[in-house]
Amino acid sequence: MKAISIGLLGLGTVGSGVIKIIENHQDKLMHQVGCPIQVKKVLVQELGKERAVKIDESVLTTDVNEIINDPGIDVVIEVMGGVEKTRELLLQAIENKKHIVTANKDLMAIYGSELLRAASANGCDLFYEASVAGGIPIIRSLVDGLASDRITKLMGIVNGTTNYILTKMTQEGLAYGDVLKEAQALGYAEANPASDVEGLDAARKMVILATLGFSMKVDLDDVKTTGITKVTEEDLHYAKQLGYTMKLLGIAHRDGERVEVSVQPTLLPHSHPLASVHNEYNAVYVYGEAVGETMFYGPGAGSLPTATSIVSDLVGVVKNMRLEVNGSSAIAPQHEKNLKAPEEIFSKYFLRLHVKDEVGVFAEITSVFAKHGVSFEKILQLPVKEKGVAEIVLVTHKASLKDYEEILMELRDLKALKEVKSSYRVEGSAGA
Amino acid sequence: MKAISIGLLGLGTVGSGVIKIIENHQDKLMHQVGCPIQVKKVLVQELGKERAVKIDESVLTTDVNEIINDPGIDVVIEVMGGVEKTRELLLQAIENKKHIVTANKDLMAIYGSELLRAASANGCDLFYEASVAGGIPIIRSLVDGLASDRITKLMGIVNGTTNYILTKMTQEGLAYGDVLKEAQALGYAEANPASDVEGLDAARKMVILATLGFSMKVDLDDVKTTGITKVTEEDLHYAKQLGYTMKLLGIAHRDGERVEVSVQPTLLPHSHPLASVHNEYNAVYVYGEAVGETMFYGPGAGSLPTATSIVSDLVGVVKNMRLEVNGSSAIAPQHEKNLKAPEEIFSKYFLRLHVKDEVGVFAEITSVFAKHGVSFEKILQLPVKEKGVAEIVLVTHKASLKDYEEILMELRDLKALKEVKSSYRVEGSAGA
Repeated sequence: MKAISIGLLGLGTVGSGVIKIIENHQDKLMHQVGCPIQVKKVLVQELGKERAVKIDESVLTTDVNEIINDPGIDVVIEVMGGVEKTRELLLQAIENKKHIVTANKDLMAIYGSELLRAASANGCDLFYEASVAGGIPIIRSLVDGLASDRITKLMGIVNGTTNYILTKMTQEGLAYGDVLKEAQALGYAEANPASDVEGLDAARKMVILATLGFSMKVDLDDVKTTGITKVTEEDLHYAKQLGYTMKLLGIAHRDGERVEVSVQPTLLPHSHPLASVHNEYNAVYVYGEAVGETMFYGPGAGSLPTATSIVSDLVGVVKNMRLEVNGSSAIAPQHEKNLKAPEEIFSKYFLRLHVKDEVGVFAEITSVFAKHGVSFEKILQLPVKEKGVAEIVLVTHKASLKDYEEILMELRDLKALKEVKSSYRVEGSAGA
Repeated sequence: MKAISIGLLGLGTVGSGVIKIIENHQDKLMHQVGCPIQVKKVLVQELGKERAVKIDESVLTTDVNEIINDPGIDVVIEVMGGVEKTRELLLQAIENKKHIVTANKDLMAIYGSELLRAASANGCDLFYEASVAGGIPIIRSLVDGLASDRITKLMGIVNGTTNYILTKMTQEGLAYGDVLKEAQALGYAEANPASDVEGLDAARKMVILATLGFSMKVDLDDVKTTGITKVTEEDLHYAKQLGYTMKLLGIAHRDGERVEVSVQPTLLPHSHPLASVHNEYNAVYVYGEAVGETMFYGPGAGSLPTATSIVSDLVGVVKNMRLEVNGSSAIAPQHEKNLKAPEEIFSKYFLRLHVKDEVGVFAEITSVFAKHGVSFEKILQLPVKEKGVAEIVLVTHKASLKDYEEILMELRDLKALKEVKSSYRVEGSAGA
């Protein structure tokens, strides 16, 4: 039977992994899709270079047109990264009726809807399982689940670097800066860690998950994003004392038809399944009206896990080719954007304050909360740290973001308040 | 377009849930499979009874032949339970070229391979996602993963009743008997809880998972099964003190081509993802050579979760019907049974002993381990409980089951040994 021809854009660790898997599992793949799969061309930056995989030099090219314009190539696997230029290339490949498998989260977060629309219009598949949590079949699970359920909440630990850093800070009581250096030395964090530690990488993945889960086009700018750079050992210490674990959490929540998407350091009860996702692992927690709580846990990155889910996508494409139903699974968002206003976003909050150690101060502070009808779940009044200063740690009951932000402003105006040391969202109470 | 006709065997809570979902999600299902899905006949025990769903009386029947022998019915959904009789009915339905979706773990654990072989021979689908961990798409995930990976280990919390009981015992320090009564009052445990608390239910599910994951026919008799009825508060207390959480764990492990499948109360480090699966929730931890560690968490039972995964299976069947590829996914085990011998099964063990409080006893005991080359990871020598008795809690390094069982025998022969209070397997050390 005619072999399926693959064009591979990029031959880094992931690209090499894809080639290894296709070679090592040729029989299994045959058995699954009923025809051989062959890598016809691979785009590289320079020829004659040392490679992680043995590969026939004649397969390599530095000219992308030999792939996207070759009528003999059926599927383009994109693992080279980049956004603007890559978007153009993939749109052109789709014009040329090529199916796409991509691991490119930046691209999918920004141009996903456009690419999906183009794919569907051209009867092409566009699969992107590897763009979120490499080793976790979360995209497929959402697509399957959506058939007979309505997803109302997605919470994700979708960045391995920050989860590794927070895990070490929590377990070893180390400072952010020290753990970051260690993570960089170990290769868990990049020389320029900004997009990880500032939460941007997680925000991109949440855009992809929310867009799919709610079938609503969400833009990166819609995601309220806070990174972990200001998290201190004290915060983690008090959080632990109150029964919470801190995670950089992506939250996508739908009430009725209105949604909220955000990324921020968030406190979860120790007993919450997301709380025991440690080190560089990822996990996505899904709440569906019918099925209730589910969670998918696995490696978020790594060349083999990522390559594995790329090959799973490839198998999906090839099956669809043989059944001539390509394009049906490339579904662009069906709902108009409909974001919650701050007064519609409810959660609990952890707040740590330094106040003047004077009579009546505590009453003064709590009255600000009372004025907004916000009460407390936990209060920790701590011994004076420095002369004349008391530390107060509070966990509120659910409050609207609007009320909470007004409370913070009003607290800052109080003479008795020295400093708002930290403030975090608290999630994971019963009923998700 | 021609509607797909369903015959439903059983109208209990799950059956009613299936009907609700098919009604409430008709449009979504249409969109997915491209044709309407209609429930043509429902087998019930008696007519004219109060139902959980509004359903046209004319759809109900007490004669199973109106379903399995009706040429107009395409898919049979079996949610009535039972084994021998149900096997016959489904084999007959398969003979009649009907596709099967079943939630019946007892049936699949015992006759799964036979039914899958029959289905594949008749070009029929046989899907059974709901037979293991109702709300978790574990079967589908294994099938997908198998395409490009080799699964070497499966560990599952696959029985909600026992997980609820162990969770309560651990969190509230209660005795097994008291928690069981509470669970029965709450409906989490049945009046006759034997098949749950003795581990049989979990063993059946592990047979299904191991058979699929290793593509090897495993029989129920091959599963070394121990329940939770002898677990004491003291055991949980000491386990906690040593950093472990106890779960009734199904373990399926493959080294090379030889496998081991067992179910027993097992200690896991608090930090292991399975350790924070609480109450009635289920989770399956999968280790694949390529992807590494993944875990799938969700409700193990409940009518809606179970009904939801039945409908997902139904969608798969209908898609295959439209693409005329039914039967390809019904794959009977491909490897001959090849079980590990006791000397090939390695793990750590937790052991609690009561010994005579005399000089030299400790040396006497440790020498038994030394003789078998088994050393200790943790030792807890505790203050005398009753006059002349000392308590020793040990955690060994990895030992073969053969060595460990010999050690237990030799310990029992020691005059210094009063009693082996408890012994548990310890799992979840680094590297799965």
